[in-house]
Amino acid sequence: MPYKVVIIGAGFAGLSAAKELSKYDEFNVVLIDRNNYHTFFPLLYQVAAAELESEEITSPLRGLMRRNRRCSVMMCDVKDIDCTSKILHTDGPDVRYDYLVLAMGSTTNYFGTPGAEQFAFPLKSLDDAVQLRSRILSCFEEASLYSDVHPTVYPNVSDDDKDDRFGKLTNIIIVGGGANGVEFAGALMELVRTSICKDFPEFNKGTVKITLLEAAPNLLSGFPAPLAQYTKERLEKMGVNVRLNAAVAEITPNGVILKDGTFLPSATVVWTAGVKSAPLAAATGFASGRAGRINVLPTLQVPEQPEIFVAGDLSLPEQAGKVPPLNIPPMVAPNAIQQGILTAKNLRRLVQKQKLLPFAYHDKGSMAVVGRGAAAVRVGKRTFTGSFAWLMWLAVHLTYLVGFRNRLMVMFNWAWGYFFAERSVRLIFRRWK
Amino acid sequence: MPYKVVIIGAGFAGLSAAKELSKYDEFNVVLIDRNNYHTFFPLLYQVAAAELESEEITSPLRGLMRRNRRCSVMMCDVKDIDCTSKILHTDGPDVRYDYLVLAMGSTTNYFGTPGAEQFAFPLKSLDDAVQLRSRILSCFEEASLYSDVHPTVYPNVSDDDKDDRFGKLTNIIIVGGGANGVEFAGALMELVRTSICKDFPEFNKGTVKITLLEAAPNLLSGFPAPLAQYTKERLEKMGVNVRLNAAVAEITPNGVILKDGTFLPSATVVWTAGVKSAPLAAATGFASGRAGRINVLPTLQVPEQPEIFVAGDLSLPEQAGKVPPLNIPPMVAPNAIQQGILTAKNLRRLVQKQKLLPFAYHDKGSMAVVGRGAAAVRVGKRTFTGSFAWLMWLAVHLTYLVGFRNRLMVMFNWAWGYFFAERSVRLIFRRWK
Repeated sequence: MPYKVVIIGAGFAGLSAAKELSKYDEFNVVLIDRNNYHTFFPLLYQVAAAELESEEITSPLRGLMRRNRRCSVMMCDVKDIDCTSKILHTDGPDVRYDYLVLAMGSTTNYFGTPGAEQFAFPLKSLDDAVQLRSRILSCFEEASLYSDVHPTVYPNVSDDDKDDRFGKLTNIIIVGGGANGVEFAGALMELVRTSICKDFPEFNKGTVKITLLEAAPNLLSGFPAPLAQYTKERLEKMGVNVRLNAAVAEITPNGVILKDGTFLPSATVVWTAGVKSAPLAAATGFASGRAGRINVLPTLQVPEQPEIFVAGDLSLPEQAGKVPPLNIPPMVAPNAIQQGILTAKNLRRLVQKQKLLPFAYHDKGSMAVVGRGAAAVRVGKRTFTGSFAWLMWLAVHLTYLVGFRNRLMVMFNWAWGYFFAERSVRLIFRRWK
Repeated sequence: MPYKVVIIGAGFAGLSAAKELSKYDEFNVVLIDRNNYHTFFPLLYQVAAAELESEEITSPLRGLMRRNRRCSVMMCDVKDIDCTSKILHTDGPDVRYDYLVLAMGSTTNYFGTPGAEQFAFPLKSLDDAVQLRSRILSCFEEASLYSDVHPTVYPNVSDDDKDDRFGKLTNIIIVGGGANGVEFAGALMELVRTSICKDFPEFNKGTVKITLLEAAPNLLSGFPAPLAQYTKERLEKMGVNVRLNAAVAEITPNGVILKDGTFLPSATVVWTAGVKSAPLAAATGFASGRAGRINVLPTLQVPEQPEIFVAGDLSLPEQAGKVPPLNIPPMVAPNAIQQGILTAKNLRRLVQKQKLLPFAYHDKGSMAVVGRGAAAVRVGKRTFTGSFAWLMWLAVHLTYLVGFRNRLMVMFNWAWGYFFAERSVRLIFRRWK
């Protein structure tokens, strides 16, 4: 009779595992996620920068799993795992499993920085991206009210206060110079240079300031040094103020305080400085390492629970019996996809009583786009920059984007943005009451 | 020197007035709205029925006004109008005006029905539409958890309770058989028959029930009787349960209680039963009539304030000196557009000391779509139904939809939905914390 595999998390790892498992008769799969859609995270920053719509980087899970008769979808939030009874406790029903795959991914890591979680804006989920876009556009709208374009009068507000407020509202600080921060900084500057300057004639070319802070001596740690340098120069040429060796001590409602004591005023501080494991990982009680990632055997199984696998950002596979591993797989999409597929294959080997395979991350390369028309790409040991790298970036992202319809829509939006120099999704969607 | 016209509300009336005024050198225009975008309300129900995305029926105001150098946009919420000093008090700055156009439109009218405002879901704004879509899809997801598809176990929930809950979650009631309710009922049934049945194999064809309640003896009051009859038959053929002479006494968290005492269980009650003037209208203190609409002269001026005009859903123009007017212009888009244009023309006549023109609603007709491939249309005295009427409906809505890009996207989505029998925007976007 088919074994029941429950997969928690429908990101890259969970989805890849579910698709691979669908080939095997031995299993029925239950895919659990708190949302009813899969999000293509690599393009999340484009939603925040008003370039793409939420719907273009999301795919309804039931639509994706429709042809897969042995896979069903449940939308609920897992609270607790009872390994002894093999039961999950959720905010809905309890769920029994024979085998379990933990693929909940990662969440924002504030590293305990005072004020960061309260006052900074993360960029890790779709809600984050829409909220951030709304915040940025709302700040521009509010700044506009302080300008002299409209014959208005602010009762009881001095000119100094107006200037101070205007300055903060038009100053955006991004903390974290990894791929996420770099790509968002570039896209945000594109938004400002194309649509915002036309929408807000009261703003000059230099009115909106974007600052990218990185604690390390270079951007894109993990990328080859020439690519990091190229990226920095390109961002600066676009007008982004890049500050390296700029560790953050505290975030306040008025801006950022660096460890060297400098204060940078801003009404919108974006936090892209790090990730850590999803909260449920800690609730499991399994041993974990850096960033809360769960220690697993090279086969991706939890050491004390051979029927439980961990795949994606959440896992920290052993290598050669050493803990922590020498080569830690990066918390990126290709790693998640590869681990998801291996998990499925190992589950099959497990029930067929064959030897399981160890995970070895196949590093195809890294890429980061830097505004329109340029990117920094590493493939194996070779590096590429400029327009050619940008076309590679576009091709890879379109290929991996889930859903034919989404690919069409994204291509349309990119083409529109390219030819008309516009960012079309300049809409402020408020919090619901 | 240019006179300053402030327009409150960027719906059909406000936008039409702003565009017409842009032709005249005598005026600088300030367009105020609490959102930074214009919403094409006639297609709002399609966002709620997962057929269109929010972005396709909205246009950023600054983009629309960009070429209009004498028009600026302010995003703020007007709280109060000081007619003596000619100053608006907003949640931001105070705003001075020489002339004022009130075009805030309408809001949901619950007619004081107990429980309606608390428990029913309105369909009057973009937030309403997205929330309603999320609600309906979430209810289906929750109902699925109660099915036997997943080997789950509900602790401490009897089978009777599960059946009861399942019944409510798959039962949707729409209160109000006007164009809004009829169009939404049809679109919702299309969603259920196409995507939902494929997404939820555990649902049978008749699992999801949609009921449309109308207090009057026929749907679409204001439409010719044959069209109302056609619409009822068509909806029933699609599977919608239409109940006429079904006035609602109360809404509870568990469903609807009719005035005749019948209880209809449901977890999602949609309220499309009526509209009334926006709250700011009452705050003005101007005399008003039915639905809180402000009494105005035939020129659309407020009787005691000749520099203040009211246009759109909000206005109740006198006719032939009678109050209330004999022919009340309906609260529909064509009326708002015509009044916006006339307001602009009358403002020009006012400053040029010419005689102002009286408003006369030019009734081009009415239309309501009933599911895919059919509509009920009246043009003048002639009526049309079926596919031909549907094509007319498509053409009119595409023509009036604001924004070339939006037209392209909407056409794409309609074509996709038509040829693939799919409703693509089946995404649950949660309330932000």
